[in-house]
Amino acid sequence: MAYNIVPLNELINQFERLPGIGKKTATRLAFSVLAAPKEQAQRFADALVNAREKIHFCACCQSFTDLEICPICADETRDKSVICVVSEAKDVLAFERTREYNGLYHVLHGVLSPLDGITAEQLKIKELMARLADGTVKEVIMATNPTVEGEATSSYLSRLIKPMGIKITRLAYGIPVGGDLEYADEVTLSKALEGRNEI
Amino acid sequence: MAYNIVPLNELINQFERLPGIGKKTATRLAFSVLAAPKEQAQRFADALVNAREKIHFCACCQSFTDLEICPICADETRDKSVICVVSEAKDVLAFERTREYNGLYHVLHGVLSPLDGITAEQLKIKELMARLADGTVKEVIMATNPTVEGEATSSYLSRLIKPMGIKITRLAYGIPVGGDLEYADEVTLSKALEGRNEI
Repeated sequence: MAYNIVPLNELINQFERLPGIGKKTATRLAFSVLAAPKEQAQRFADALVNAREKIHFCACCQSFTDLEICPICADETRDKSVICVVSEAKDVLAFERTREYNGLYHVLHGVLSPLDGITAEQLKIKELMARLADGTVKEVIMATNPTVEGEATSSYLSRLIKPMGIKITRLAYGIPVGGDLEYADEVTLSKALEGRNEI
Repeated sequence: MAYNIVPLNELINQFERLPGIGKKTATRLAFSVLAAPKEQAQRFADALVNAREKIHFCACCQSFTDLEICPICADETRDKSVICVVSEAKDVLAFERTREYNGLYHVLHGVLSPLDGITAEQLKIKELMARLADGTVKEVIMATNPTVEGEATSSYLSRLIKPMGIKITRLAYGIPVGGDLEYADEVTLSKALEGRNEI
């Protein structure tokens, strides 16, 4: 193609590396950068480098933070006897949005997936076991995604933690609020039936 | 919210400024930057600044280029007697992908839209008139989008150019190839009927 601008192609390639962004969207985004003022591109670039430089894992829960210990772990008002184990840092945000949970978190940064070569050593499991060692924690809530890998990770951890005498719970399965029974899959529906409560 | 990381929020805000990216997608993209290696964030930042610094308007057709004159305008093999007028630089890419058009382009960088305060002075219309002045151009193809603003821009330009004795054409309206008649709107269908050809 005659119309081949190297810096533009490079920018399109960079956008395309982002998850869920294909060639067309990447092109649209790159053109929007060209149409915006120069300072805007500079601010975007600074935000990228800044976020990646300043944000690292919390020394305690392994979530992302720009401090030594994240604000949740440092918060004295939170219940230190419960740890909610999630696979990704963004799951912490999802729980925080509920405003219902007052315990701590632990981020594994992935799930066990032998096919992708992800083994227990690559997840933040050692760090979790270290936090459980001193006996402060009374309950661990397994909140990995309800996928095959998420379930496998959750049962692997359960087997590790059970001998320590800590209560292990897991999120309830069921139909989502606002969902439609007609569109619920068989597995979800049978789990909802299994976990039914008296009203 | 307790979980408030300033550099992360700044990055999410920057992603959210992009067209078609909402809060949720912006958050997902920002987390993917955190999960990728540091050099990757740096390369992305460099690509942003680089593209915005090096790419500017072609002195002739006003399309984006990193050279003084874009490769299309500089290409001696292209037909200099036809100019295709488009509203955005990305429309040039769309035409180039067809591999059917061998003329030149002119990018207006917008359409007339009095409600948004976009008047003829803000578009690259002076530059187009300057290109038409020397008599090389025999035909101008109006290829603005088939919207109210696109049509208004196209008829405004036609009125300006007609007195110069240059042929003015416009893209055919009709049903898109691979489209379904059932889903075609009334206006498109009546335009397709109006513009029917003998087979």
